[in-house]
Amino acid sequence: MERFFSRRARTIRRSVLRELLKFTQRPEVISFAGGTPDPETFPKDELSRIAAEEIARNYAKCLQYSTTEGDTKLREVLLKLFAGEGIEATLDEIIITTASQQGLDLVAKTFIDPGDVVYMELPSYIGAIQAFRAFQAELVGVPLEEDGMDLEALRERIRADKREGRRPKFIYVIPDFQNPTGVCWSREKRLKLLEIASEEDLLVVEDAPYRPLRFRGEHIPSLKALDEEGRVVFLFTLSKILVPGLRVAALVGDREIVSKVVAVKQAADLCTPALTQALAYRFLAESDIAGHIETIRAHYRRKRDAMIEALERHMPEGVRWTRPDGGLFLWVALPEGADTERMFPKALERKVAYVIGTPFFVDGSGRNTMRLSFAIATEEQIEEGIRRLSEVVREELAAVSAAAGL
Amino acid sequence: MERFFSRRARTIRRSVLRELLKFTQRPEVISFAGGTPDPETFPKDELSRIAAEEIARNYAKCLQYSTTEGDTKLREVLLKLFAGEGIEATLDEIIITTASQQGLDLVAKTFIDPGDVVYMELPSYIGAIQAFRAFQAELVGVPLEEDGMDLEALRERIRADKREGRRPKFIYVIPDFQNPTGVCWSREKRLKLLEIASEEDLLVVEDAPYRPLRFRGEHIPSLKALDEEGRVVFLFTLSKILVPGLRVAALVGDREIVSKVVAVKQAADLCTPALTQALAYRFLAESDIAGHIETIRAHYRRKRDAMIEALERHMPEGVRWTRPDGGLFLWVALPEGADTERMFPKALERKVAYVIGTPFFVDGSGRNTMRLSFAIATEEQIEEGIRRLSEVVREELAAVSAAAGL
Repeated sequence: MERFFSRRARTIRRSVLRELLKFTQRPEVISFAGGTPDPETFPKDELSRIAAEEIARNYAKCLQYSTTEGDTKLREVLLKLFAGEGIEATLDEIIITTASQQGLDLVAKTFIDPGDVVYMELPSYIGAIQAFRAFQAELVGVPLEEDGMDLEALRERIRADKREGRRPKFIYVIPDFQNPTGVCWSREKRLKLLEIASEEDLLVVEDAPYRPLRFRGEHIPSLKALDEEGRVVFLFTLSKILVPGLRVAALVGDREIVSKVVAVKQAADLCTPALTQALAYRFLAESDIAGHIETIRAHYRRKRDAMIEALERHMPEGVRWTRPDGGLFLWVALPEGADTERMFPKALERKVAYVIGTPFFVDGSGRNTMRLSFAIATEEQIEEGIRRLSEVVREELAAVSAAAGL
Repeated sequence: MERFFSRRARTIRRSVLRELLKFTQRPEVISFAGGTPDPETFPKDELSRIAAEEIARNYAKCLQYSTTEGDTKLREVLLKLFAGEGIEATLDEIIITTASQQGLDLVAKTFIDPGDVVYMELPSYIGAIQAFRAFQAELVGVPLEEDGMDLEALRERIRADKREGRRPKFIYVIPDFQNPTGVCWSREKRLKLLEIASEEDLLVVEDAPYRPLRFRGEHIPSLKALDEEGRVVFLFTLSKILVPGLRVAALVGDREIVSKVVAVKQAADLCTPALTQALAYRFLAESDIAGHIETIRAHYRRKRDAMIEALERHMPEGVRWTRPDGGLFLWVALPEGADTERMFPKALERKVAYVIGTPFFVDGSGRNTMRLSFAIATEEQIEEGIRRLSEVVREELAAVSAAAGL
């Protein structure tokens, strides 16, 4: 069948990560590998009641086709939420997407011609890498530091690309508690990024799934809230603050961009399910969403603290990790020479799992890194799992030292 | 913002049809314009009960991420349904899509390079035209006759395209009660189409949303059931036999194709909502689906009969229409020279609406045609609406005659 595939499709491979995840789902494995939120945070009773009511009373709307733009009331309640964050937008500047993964697909389809350059954090979100690669973008990774991207490196790279005749198109970033590292950008770097985008005339795609999940530290404005030129396309999802199973997200941007994205989405799936939009709207409109988010934050803060404490207790010298103030993930770097992919089968033998780092690096680096999610495991499992993982790491480091000594 | 758009996006326009539909939604207008099924056919009480139960009991699964392939139990129950139709397929030959519109998008993304030739019925479904155009396919319309495509014209065109160095990729057809015409392909033409696809080494994309909605006449096997070479990609949706608001559909094809489509869908929306898949599964597994479809068939048959009778009663000489044995639509052709777009504002003045024919023709023809849906209006509204429409048609024909007489 290969002969029928498009050039694009021939280069698309299934995510290594998703294939690896299959091995981690045996019940005896303590898994830090998943990227999913904890089902214990799902407001199931409220959603069950809302669903029964909505379908019985409002079936002619919630079981029918929706508009491509998305339900007006849902868009209004989201705009109110964003206004509280300093993002001022109107109804023609927002479109509902079938989760943020579709937002990434629509962004790619709307902006990328084969060969166009997209800048991303190194490491960055695998789903974004897949979405952009599917449209034959040239992906350039820019090192991520503790407070955000290395912006001098970004600027130099953009200028070099322009000199060499490439076409820089946009910069994709996850400024809040990034997947995979948990890093949060400083205010200074946010402002500086917008300055560079303006000088170099690029768009910025801001992916903010974890933004509401801050457990400590002070609020830093989103790029979209700081954006004075309409250069920022803002992606927000309900997957982490409500549930992933509805696949409801929103894209906010300049009205000319949103109008084009609506046309592109018409051809992609016509509309996001009316039913899941209706449930999302009713939950946001009727529930104590601020209180719900506060509960979720406390839930993940406890688990994050448990993981940091376990890492401090068990990990050998030379291993470093991030200390995120929000989100679901932290990031571990072993000393150079270690290889988390080689280590993976040994970890599975000890019944602990993580995600290897390399798929998050568009340049194929990061062999000594891994992502740990603290979202799903209990505090007891976190302690035991990190203990097991530390043993595997000790063995790997011993093997590296032995090899270096030869 | 135009400067940031991809070449593809620059050519994408919002569907004229969807823009026109906005004018038809005033309550005093009798609309034959919509493409939606009748909400009175929605099994709302059963879905309401299932939703409440499923969310309360099974929240850890139905509110979480699903797999990209789709829920295994849902795929199994669909395979059983298809087996009853003579389509034998296994779990690795089916993927759940976010409605069939996403099936079309994934097919386009998987197969089409810019300039590849896709053959379609003339007229054909607007959503397919949009999906394929978004990937810069060259669309070739082949005239649709009463029993299916003009296959001699198809074969000649494929050969001419090959001679001239173009790359034919697949043939897209809606063999059962097509949108927009209601035409159903004969068994002979189905077999002949597969023969041509085999000789010319092309894929066939069979879109079958209306297939179960046959009101009279005998069952004709689907192309997929007749397919012996794995050339047919079969798209099936629950939008017309259950509800559109779930956005649950399936793509069935050769396992190498399905495996590639899974990789492509990962980057497109990761997964179809777990919740809507769970509701679809439970409805298909627990309800009398055959009985439900029988009720829907009877419902639309009555309306179809009412519309045919009204057309016979009111339409002037020279106007022709299809007499579909299934589906939601029939197709009206006025004498040459008439223009249904010019006529449209006059119809709205008389408070009746339809869909103009030209957007369904990839070659821009069909100015004298229109699509009428009998799905939504009541039998009384159908009688009154066709009476009003006939008046508008009489005026249009008088104007055409007068112009010709000048």
